[in-house]
Amino acid sequence: MGMSVQAACDRIQSPDPKLLAKAQARLDCLTKPQGSLGRLEEVAARYVMMTGELKPAIPRGVVFTFAADHGVTKEGVSAYPREVTPQMVLNFLRGGAGVNVLARHAGVGVRVVDIGVDHDFGTLPDLISKKVMRGTRNLLVEPAMTRAEAEQSVLIGVELATQAAQEGIGLIGTGDMGIGNTTPSAAITAVMTGRPVSDVTGRGTGIDDAGHARKVAVIQQALDLHRPDRSDALDVLAKVGGLDIGGLVGLILGAAAARVPVVLDGFIAGAAALIAVGLQPRCREYLIASHRSVERGHAAIFDHLGVRPLLDLDLRLGEGTGACLGMSLVCAALKIYTEMATFGEAGVSEKA
Amino acid sequence: MGMSVQAACDRIQSPDPKLLAKAQARLDCLTKPQGSLGRLEEVAARYVMMTGELKPAIPRGVVFTFAADHGVTKEGVSAYPREVTPQMVLNFLRGGAGVNVLARHAGVGVRVVDIGVDHDFGTLPDLISKKVMRGTRNLLVEPAMTRAEAEQSVLIGVELATQAAQEGIGLIGTGDMGIGNTTPSAAITAVMTGRPVSDVTGRGTGIDDAGHARKVAVIQQALDLHRPDRSDALDVLAKVGGLDIGGLVGLILGAAAARVPVVLDGFIAGAAALIAVGLQPRCREYLIASHRSVERGHAAIFDHLGVRPLLDLDLRLGEGTGACLGMSLVCAALKIYTEMATFGEAGVSEKA
Repeated sequence: MGMSVQAACDRIQSPDPKLLAKAQARLDCLTKPQGSLGRLEEVAARYVMMTGELKPAIPRGVVFTFAADHGVTKEGVSAYPREVTPQMVLNFLRGGAGVNVLARHAGVGVRVVDIGVDHDFGTLPDLISKKVMRGTRNLLVEPAMTRAEAEQSVLIGVELATQAAQEGIGLIGTGDMGIGNTTPSAAITAVMTGRPVSDVTGRGTGIDDAGHARKVAVIQQALDLHRPDRSDALDVLAKVGGLDIGGLVGLILGAAAARVPVVLDGFIAGAAALIAVGLQPRCREYLIASHRSVERGHAAIFDHLGVRPLLDLDLRLGEGTGACLGMSLVCAALKIYTEMATFGEAGVSEKA
Repeated sequence: MGMSVQAACDRIQSPDPKLLAKAQARLDCLTKPQGSLGRLEEVAARYVMMTGELKPAIPRGVVFTFAADHGVTKEGVSAYPREVTPQMVLNFLRGGAGVNVLARHAGVGVRVVDIGVDHDFGTLPDLISKKVMRGTRNLLVEPAMTRAEAEQSVLIGVELATQAAQEGIGLIGTGDMGIGNTTPSAAITAVMTGRPVSDVTGRGTGIDDAGHARKVAVIQQALDLHRPDRSDALDVLAKVGGLDIGGLVGLILGAAAARVPVVLDGFIAGAAALIAVGLQPRCREYLIASHRSVERGHAAIFDHLGVRPLLDLDLRLGEGTGACLGMSLVCAALKIYTEMATFGEAGVSEKA
């Protein structure tokens, strides 16, 4: 690849806010009271600003689902066994998982990336093989990754987003699969937002009270041990993050550099967004938050990033499921922008 | 038609709650943590219960957009002139309005019903002509409708829903177009929920402070004059309601009788639901609220009905736009229910 994370960050430009006003001017000519389509109008105008397309086509969309294992699962922080990660990768490839169903519903594609699953898949034609290593190390006892490994995971995401943009993909969704990955996500959230661990640590796939207490203690001990540096987001990602999260960080950076809007899925995506924005604050302007997850800590991420999710459907599955629903709303918003008649075209009287 | 409103109400049966448990049992076998698709699971299970279909097909959906004028527009309660009602009907028929765009996005049809527009459309092939009269009377000075006119409007909705069910339509959305119709809707909401008029009266298409104060005063004076009887929902509909609202009341009753789930649009639909549930409490179980409107008073309706909207996107357009988005989510939920692999099929390990 030959690119550094710093170079990837440097390519990202802030969008031009004048485009937002131009897009809103078009929306205000359409046959509806001004602003009456609320957040659909906001999303359409932001899409125009992000991409610079004043007459956008309805974009082809793709969800990238990064799969990886996490050494911290040794500590009993998840309700599901570790082998579920590769099992679900195979389920994705057969089209039977939640993300496949909702992607078909939304008319978007799913690309599954093995960025660090602890399993040898052999050669599978539809799996994007980018394994950095077979899962992270156990962050309770040592850093999850070296800085070089973390950087490698980010650059994989950058590369995939860059290629997608070159193919003409106009909307990228984030997805993740990794048993245990709410633990590194909560650790990142605690560091990057400065909130107490217990405030940002949830139940993931459904651990009980004892499991939750253990998870909080594991994260707190890891933070006390590694003391990740909040002002150095790659340090945070390496010490208490994950390979799936690193891939998502890069996906966000690469998409933002290519002016492709990124629809964030749930809590894991939010943790990745905290790292990405920590690396390059300008990438925040390319983010669309699809939904507010049940997972405790997601709200703290939104507060920190200053973004407002579109949906609140009590989802906590991950994989990119919420992103698919959000991408469908983005396309709906763009159809409003491009397909509705104006007052002039329709011969409808304007406000008195 | 030969049916009375009472007979239409009597045909509605409560769904069997055992079906809800059966549907949830299937959802719990799918390759995801139990309950992790949140409200999508709730909607899928409720759809199964409402329809009695344990293996539901993805339904064909239709939005019925009832158009009517309102005598109360004489009092300056709307930001738009009255002629916008027929102009927008023509816009619907040409496919250029917000509801057309979002219906195409959701893969559902739109049927436009003239139930009381103050305009002679002549013969238009795609317009369902069911005009009861050319708009209601001015509810500030006299009852909006006679009881017979109100009943006629309801029976039109019953008939259209019944026919749709016979055609195999499996999902019905509500839509409305009528300049001034947030005024009767707020009046109905005040009566049926017992809340003060000022608590449930919003700005509709966008009136200013003086217009809003006038709207509140008009509604209060009308309620003082007519004293509609909350225990007699048809009396409320006749005295302070509208023909579009009456059509929606009937649509709800007819759909519920046929076990077809009804996706409510915004505030106008909510007022219609208050009347429908007042006439027959059992129809509540067939309602799916698509979204929480910006319109003040919508929250009071949800509290009263005990339903929770799926979306909160700051919409306030009406027409059925929110219903279209809700119908898309219902279909997404049913695809989850029918298309996802089970743990057994996918060879995925279950929770430890």
